[in-house]
Amino acid sequence: MNRLEQQLSFILELDKAKRIMRQTYLSDGSRKENDAEHSWHLALMAFVLAEYANEPVDVCKLMKMVMLHDIIEIDAGDTYAYDSEGNASKRQRELKAAERIYRLLPEDQAAEYRSLWDEFEAMETPEAKFANTLDKIQPILLTNAAGGQSWREHGVKESQIKGRNARTAEGSESLWQYAASLIEENIRKGNIDKDADMV
Amino acid sequence: MNRLEQQLSFILELDKAKRIMRQTYLSDGSRKENDAEHSWHLALMAFVLAEYANEPVDVCKLMKMVMLHDIIEIDAGDTYAYDSEGNASKRQRELKAAERIYRLLPEDQAAEYRSLWDEFEAMETPEAKFANTLDKIQPILLTNAAGGQSWREHGVKESQIKGRNARTAEGSESLWQYAASLIEENIRKGNIDKDADMV
Repeated sequence: MNRLEQQLSFILELDKAKRIMRQTYLSDGSRKENDAEHSWHLALMAFVLAEYANEPVDVCKLMKMVMLHDIIEIDAGDTYAYDSEGNASKRQRELKAAERIYRLLPEDQAAEYRSLWDEFEAMETPEAKFANTLDKIQPILLTNAAGGQSWREHGVKESQIKGRNARTAEGSESLWQYAASLIEENIRKGNIDKDADMV
Repeated sequence: MNRLEQQLSFILELDKAKRIMRQTYLSDGSRKENDAEHSWHLALMAFVLAEYANEPVDVCKLMKMVMLHDIIEIDAGDTYAYDSEGNASKRQRELKAAERIYRLLPEDQAAEYRSLWDEFEAMETPEAKFANTLDKIQPILLTNAAGGQSWREHGVKESQIKGRNARTAEGSESLWQYAASLIEENIRKGNIDKDADMV
């Protein structure tokens, strides 16, 4: 395969992200969303909300990062945030997927994009922290708009959602503050279980 | 509404793009794709294939442009490329949609993003030309991968597809050359009707 054919094989392979379903419902509650839709929404939030990042971010790099952050799920599948068994094996499954999928590309691009994914996972740079904030906040916005459906279906507890969001403020204090107010509202409404374990 | 609330109302409004269906099938032919999925795919192609643009492109601007290029369809609906009646009223419907949707944003962003859409539509800058090339080539890649299904269903003719792609090479000669070879292959296979009208 020549360079263009390799790139197109990657682009066609990624079409499969449109069939990886997440647990988050669309804002009207009509159905769950898939990874391609989720990533499009994050890339949109990346440039519309960049001003709220705690540290200045390279918006172009951030957009690429969120566009690619879930493609390993083509092989590894979506692991629901509150599925503890699935989350135990998640890292190994995702590393194996990254090995296969990025290798479809010419070497230079494989290295560049794989390193963007590693950076996202390590959550140390301003872009990785802000991408993580967006990734955590987007389902909260949608689930709140859809009336809390996926939280109720999974019996999500306050301690779980707060545990999962322990680092969300690292990318953006103000976006986390907004999302936290939505969480409080949904605890009051009974969509998220208030638990006694919380300190 | 404060600034953040305006931005989030735009971001939630755009969730509706996930429910605007196009005529293009996913590469496995299982179902048609929607505008959010299509735009995610174009943003991916924007940075993976930027090297094939006839003129140097600002990849960050290009990505934003393709991310937003179809949001007017939330109000105006998707007009199939080969629906001549729908295409007659398309421009008016889309302008009205742009008036409403971009105005959800704070003024500075409304102006910036609306102007990116106007630039895309005018097809004069390197980014707008290349975005148009990607927008035309993505459905050709998918439809070819899916075995020509949507071309056959609509009885698409060689003259129609070539007419529609009269300006696709302006953004990228090499990507158009590749897409043209796929079109020829699908004419040979009978997925696209060869017509005598062609010179």
